[in-house]
Order: sequence, then structure tokens, then C-alpha cells
Amino acid sequence: MTAKDLSHLLSIEAKTRRPSPLKTAFKYYGKPDIVFLGGGLPMSDYFPWDKVLAYSPEPPFADGIAAKPTEGKAVISELHKHKIEEFDVPLARSLQYGHTEGQPELLKFVKEHTALIHKIPNEEWDVVLSVGNTQAWDATLRTFCDPGDSILVEEYSFPSALETASPFQVDYVPVPMDNGGIIPEKLEELFENWDASNKKPKLLYTIATGQNPTGSSLSAERREAIYKIACKHDFLIVEDEPYYFLQMNDYKQGASEDPKHSYDEPKQTHEEFLAALVPSFSHLDTEGRVVRLDSFSKVLAPGVRLGWIVAQKKLLERYVRLHEVSIQTPSGFTQSLVQGLLGRWGQSGYVDWLIALRKEYTIKRDFTIDVLHKNMPKDVVEFFPPSAGMFFTVVLDASKHPDFKTKFASDPIKVETAIYEAGLEKGCLMIPGSWFQSPNFKPHDNTFFFRGTYAAVPLDQLKVGLERFGEAVKTVYGL
Amino acid sequence: MTAKDLSHLLSIEAKTRRPSPLKTAFKYYGKPDIVFLGGGLPMSDYFPWDKVLAYSPEPPFADGIAAKPTEGKAVISELHKHKIEEFDVPLARSLQYGHTEGQPELLKFVKEHTALIHKIPNEEWDVVLSVGNTQAWDATLRTFCDPGDSILVEEYSFPSALETASPFQVDYVPVPMDNGGIIPEKLEELFENWDASNKKPKLLYTIATGQNPTGSSLSAERREAIYKIACKHDFLIVEDEPYYFLQMNDYKQGASEDPKHSYDEPKQTHEEFLAALVPSFSHLDTEGRVVRLDSFSKVLAPGVRLGWIVAQKKLLERYVRLHEVSIQTPSGFTQSLVQGLLGRWGQSGYVDWLIALRKEYTIKRDFTIDVLHKNMPKDVVEFFPPSAGMFFTVVLDASKHPDFKTKFASDPIKVETAIYEAGLEKGCLMIPGSWFQSPNFKPHDNTFFFRGTYAAVPLDQLKVGLERFGEAVKTVYGL
Repeated sequence: MTAKDLSHLLSIEAKTRRPSPLKTAFKYYGKPDIVFLGGGLPMSDYFPWDKVLAYSPEPPFADGIAAKPTEGKAVISELHKHKIEEFDVPLARSLQYGHTEGQPELLKFVKEHTALIHKIPNEEWDVVLSVGNTQAWDATLRTFCDPGDSILVEEYSFPSALETASPFQVDYVPVPMDNGGIIPEKLEELFENWDASNKKPKLLYTIATGQNPTGSSLSAERREAIYKIACKHDFLIVEDEPYYFLQMNDYKQGASEDPKHSYDEPKQTHEEFLAALVPSFSHLDTEGRVVRLDSFSKVLAPGVRLGWIVAQKKLLERYVRLHEVSIQTPSGFTQSLVQGLLGRWGQSGYVDWLIALRKEYTIKRDFTIDVLHKNMPKDVVEFFPPSAGMFFTVVLDASKHPDFKTKFASDPIKVETAIYEAGLEKGCLMIPGSWFQSPNFKPHDNTFFFRGTYAAVPLDQLKVGLERFGEAVKTVYGL
Repeated sequence: MTAKDLSHLLSIEAKTRRPSPLKTAFKYYGKPDIVFLGGGLPMSDYFPWDKVLAYSPEPPFADGIAAKPTEGKAVISELHKHKIEEFDVPLARSLQYGHTEGQPELLKFVKEHTALIHKIPNEEWDVVLSVGNTQAWDATLRTFCDPGDSILVEEYSFPSALETASPFQVDYVPVPMDNGGIIPEKLEELFENWDASNKKPKLLYTIATGQNPTGSSLSAERREAIYKIACKHDFLIVEDEPYYFLQMNDYKQGASEDPKHSYDEPKQTHEEFLAALVPSFSHLDTEGRVVRLDSFSKVLAPGVRLGWIVAQKKLLERYVRLHEVSIQTPSGFTQSLVQGLLGRWGQSGYVDWLIALRKEYTIKRDFTIDVLHKNMPKDVVEFFPPSAGMFFTVVLDASKHPDFKTKFASDPIKVETAIYEAGLEKGCLMIPGSWFQSPNFKPHDNTFFFRGTYAAVPLDQLKVGLERFGEAVKTVYGL
């Protein structure tokens, strides 16, 4: 299938970009009969790193991903200025200028991985490296949005992502959600009631899997419905998917307390693991209107500052022009070290890592929900085991507070604030859900929520924190 | 001295940025009596790099900077998840989220270095890390320029830097130059003749030392005169200074052919070396109106994608807000590895490196100019030994071509093109100077030039290339 021409969606900024005139000279670079005095590149002989070694754990990570690599059981990436392993990015190249899209060896790995996972139906997809999804989202706004444009956002979303967009002077159109994320019917309604004197939105920004802050994940059916709406109303879907591989096994209440419970059984094959992943918007992208922002931040480490953008080639070309005059390309150390590791692990070893990572998050999620079951007053609190990501929410009904109409003047946010403060007093910080409301947000009812994470804390701390938070809720509600 | 309030120079984009509301919660992070369930950070136990080792050369680099580190004579940066050396950035921190301004240990080194070199007179200067000067320049444009603003640029400048600015819809005001760079009197004239109905320029963008493409460097006197004009007409000076430490010893004709000539004698002390550097605009910056873009690209390696911005604190705060929602911070591997090296070298070892680097560039520059003396037809060609940087120029007088008025219709660019093509035919590529003309450029006379570099090529290749280029010039001029 071929992609649609969507160049009418580009911003003025993106349309204005031209390649550097020096590029035309670079076609002579490296020709044996030409002495090239054109480029201001330092000689790689002068780079003061001769060799870099990195020690990493070895697949299949039987002792868990937190186990330290030991003598004889480590993957050692040995990187030199010049190539030793075919799959490595030599330091003389990664530490030099060039390769804005990314080093070829790393691009190859990421493209193979993307093909394996997403099976994208339009043939014109490609990949460009980014320095992480925050930068990729900023680049996306620069590439598509002019002042006065509007963008669709989840009604609760990641404040940094919203703040990234604000200085572009865009207008936000929040899309109503429930526990399953964006409600497609509500999205369609927005267009049915659209004021024809306003331009339609350029794009939908969604954290489709393990959403921040709600922890919700869009089902395959909802994704299909949303994709159809995007085609009908001609907007892009920007899927920001750092948590995609934190999809977990089903929650079983009490499993975390069962000493005989194993998170490894039944053992899944790689094929079973991949088949169980929810299909991405990219997987549905027949027209080439999905821009997928993918990242190693939650899967390897945030500080690598390395991600990749998946989209149709013609649109990606505009990102490359932007990167040439901004970030250039991700750090050469990062590219050599990440590819050093991925090359040694191979696609199969990387899937082993993702499976082992999922196990860790499943253990933490199960433990968290079991602790919530024990400590939350069920009369006023609801919670839903997330199927992906780092976040869980605790949803409260303000109208169930005996003094809601009096002390809190029928304002759920006032109850929320009281619980936040009581939480701090008892010694637990959860983030109030109202902090994630997108601009132009309209409340549906008297519920509010808190966002917590099980990612950053060990289990014993999680238990203590949630017990304290339960106390805070009970205190405020007088239970 | 205290800096002036220059917030009236900020762009709408920069004024619109707000910090994330989540920041207010982060003041509770790490407090012993609070279980913090607020942040979506993965645990550093899960980062798949346990240890990284890097091998680098050892000061004082007696065998030159290109010598490979050998057994017993190498600096080995051994980096772990947790700290071993006080000055190291541990991987558990550098590979995690946080520290948008840069890791404290690296910031400390860079600030000490900046204080040592520039002795900035206003007390409110500070430093923020960038991912290189291209990104820092893009961030500068975002921070100060609105569509319709104008910026002062050198009449010949780096095309990528000009292309970075174009999509901001700024108007370019080229400043006339000679062999010494910007002519302060011409800059003053621009303001004397300024159309009062137009807003004055927001900033001057200058590559003050080893300018790209002309190879010129501004003298201390010119810098002082330009700084005064900036204060009088209230614009910022953005000094893009990747070549600052490629300042060379004086050129001595024929030295490269003298087998007894030593580039090490007389040996300079560190103090003599530092005192001989041309003072930067930052050194003159009493009012806090200089934004200095500094980079490791030409001094260590371009692929580290690491630089730093020096400016007054209040302005830098706006860069930090921008970085939070775009690049976040440079790669953690880069920060740990660069600081691993700099920490081991120390400020003194780093100055040793800079001295050794200067020697390499002096050798190459001297060789280049000596070869030009031998191969260029002096009747039509001029050249000037650059005092800094990677670039040299060969200036030609088109009016000295016998067929200038006829065959070339009195257009110097047509002669330039003929020589470019003849060069390619003979087997040498030098970049035509007209490719570097800034928008709105007005020619002074019938001269034109080519830019070459001695940075990227070994000496024997340089010789072959310049001989071929000399042939090309002679052929076109019929000499």
C-alpha cells in the first residue's frame, strides 16, 4: 500500500526549511580522484577515546533484569575507532559529524525491530533517530503546527507534553476518556459539532498504551475506530509510546501474596509474547498518517536520550532537515554503546529483555493492586489494574464525602487538595489528577483521582506508602 | 558588576513557557519521611550497563594528540552505576531522568574552565549544557526571535547557521567584513542609516574566532568597539565559538620546510598560553548581553554532541525551560564519559590538551600557506594565514581575468564557477565563497574567494590538492 500525500499538513516552518547548499559538494566526498578540502571535520585521530568497553547482562536474563553481570556471564561491548564486529558503530564514525538520520547499523536494528513488532501496512514507512520522545514531540509540533492551529489531546495528559505545545500557540481540543482511554464515539461527536468557521485539528496526540496519567490502554477496537476517524477528518495520529513494552500479564487478585505463584508460568514463546501485544496505530496505518514516537527511555535507560520516529518517508524528510539545524543526531557514544549492546543481544536477545522487563512490572503492578485492595476504603474509592505502563490511579467520588456540599462547596478539586495534603502529612505523595487536565478540560462528574507509580520504588516502600495514602483518604472522608 | 535586565528581548515563545506543574511535587523527592509515588522513573537497577571503561591519552601528550594510548600510559575512565571517584558522574544518575542544566560534576568543570579562560566581569553569568552549538543556536533563536525580527549576521557566514534562522522568518542584516572580520565602523553606519520605522535587530550572530568561511578572527580592539555598539543599540551578541581553542602561533613563511623548525619552541607555560588567547566577547560582558555558544566538537569530538551556553542567569533560565520540553539534557553516556576524562585530566591536563591541539593545527596551517605560496599565481590571488580555526581562503580578483567583461559578462561569480569546475576536473574540491553569502548580501568589488580546510586531510593530500587547485586557477586565467 502506498502512503497518501499529506504535505498540506506541514507547518510554515517545515515548508520553509531548505537543505544546506554545502550538501551539493558532499557528493564528491570520499571519491578517490578528488582531494576534498570542503568539510570542516576534525580528524578522528584526534578524538581522545581510543577504546570503550561496556559490561551488560546476558540473555535470557534468567535471574531477572536487575541481576548484575558476573565474570563469564556478561555481554562485553568492545568498541574501537575502527570496526571489529560487523554490527558495531566504530567510534571514528559515531564521534564524527554526519548521519543525521542515525548510524546505519543502529537504524538497521531499529527498523528490523519495528518491522517485527508493527508490520506496518503502507510500504513507505521509515525511521529517523531522535534524542527521546520529548524532543520528537517538539519536532513534530515544529513540523506540523502553526500558531492558531488546533490539536486533539487526551483530556488528561502528560503536563510536559502539553507545555511543549503551549509556546506554539496552538489551541487544545480535549477528547473525553474512560478507563479504556479515548472514547471513539466522543471523538466523532467533536467533529459532528465542529464549528465550520474553525480549521479542523492537525493532529491527535495520544499516549495510547499505559497512558500517563490514567494508566489506561486503548484496545485494538478503539484504535481501529480512532484511525478511521483520522482518515475521515484528515488529521495525523501522533502516538507517543514509551510504555508500549511495559504491557503486562493479566492481573490475578492475591497472586502477589501466594508464595507458589510464578510470574514465569506458563512460559511464553517469543511468538506468543509478540502476538499478545496490543496492535499499535502504526500497525493500522494504511494511509501513512501515523507518526510513532518510540523510545529506549523506559526499556533501557532514560539518560541514553535515544528514541526513533516512525512515519512515512516524505514526512520524515522534514524531520531530517530540522535535525540538521538543531540536534544534528543523537550522541555518538549513545549510538555506539546502544548498538554495541543490541548487536550483541540480537533481535532475539532484545525480546528476551522485553519479556524479562514485563515480568518485573507485572510483579510490581500485582503487588500494588493487592495492597490497594487491602488498604483503600471501597465505598469511596475505585481502582483498575492497568494493563501497561508505570502508572496506576485511585479514583474517588467527591459526592460521597459527607461535607461535599458544605465544607467543599461542591468542588471535587477541593476534596482532592485535602487528600493530597493529608497524604503528605501521613508521609506519601501521589499526584492529584487535576494537575493533568488539559487546557479547555470540562469535568464529567464529581469524581477525581490520584496518579501513583510502582516503577521507581521497591515493594516494601510501595506497601508503606499506600497504607499511608489509605489512611489519608479515610481521615479526610471521616471513615 | 550586575547584569542588565534584558527580558524585553525575549521572544513570545520564550515568554510563553511555563515550568511543569509536577515540579512543585518534586521538592518532596528524596525526603526520608515521604514515600514518593510521584515520578515515572525506571529503577536504575534495570539499566543494562553495569560498568563502562574508556581508554584515553595521558597528559602532557608529549607524542602529540594523535598518539594512541599504550599500556601503562593511558587514562582509564572506569564508570559504575555508583560513584567511585568524587568527580565522576555515576551511571545510575547520568542514565536517569533529571539535571536538565547538566550533571553537577560536569557543570562544575565547565564553569571553572569558563572562569579561568574568560574572566567574565558581570557576576550573574552561568552555564547550561547544550547538545552542541547548532542546537544552542536554534535554542537562541527560539528564545529571542519572533517572525519579522531582524538579526545581524556576518556578510559571509556558515550556511547551516543561516538555514537554522530562516524558518523563524527573521530578516537578515549583513555586516560588512574585511580580513579582520566585522568592520565596527560599518556596523555603526548600519545603525546611523537605520530606517526608524523598522525595529532594531535583536542580536548579532558572529563566529568571532577562526570564522567560517573566511578564517578571520576579530581583534581585541574590534571586539571592544562592537560590544560598545551592542550596548548603545541594545542588541545581544551571540558568539558561536567552536574554533576558539584553535588559535595558532604566528605564521612564519617556510617554517614547514625547515627540518630544524620546532613547533614546540619556545615552550609556553599555561599562563602564557592563556594570556595569548584573544579576549572573548564574554570577557567584555559588563552588561550581560553576550550569549556564548561553546562546544567540545572541535576540541574533543563532534559526535559527543556536547556544548555549553554561557550567559546571564535570567536569560539562561529560559533555555532551561526550553530544554525541559525538547532535548531534556545531553546524553548521559556523553556526560559520564566526557566528565570521566576531564575529571582525570583536570583543568591543567585539559590545557595541556588544548596546547597540543594548537600545535597540530599550527603545523597544518603553516604547511598549507607554504604550499599556497608555491602554487598560486600571485598576480590574481591573495591569501592570508588565518590565526585560528580550520579554514583558509584564497581570494581572487575577477577583473584581472582578460575575458572578464566579455566571456564572464563582468560577473565575478561566473569566474568563480569556472574555477570550481576546473578544480573538480583537476581533482580538488574547494568551496566557492559565494555559497556563504548571507541573504541581502551586497558585493563590494570584483573579488571572490574559495574556502578550504586543512583540518580533515593529512599533509601529503593537502599538497596534492592545492597543487591541483593552483593548476585550475592558472588554466581558467590562461596563465
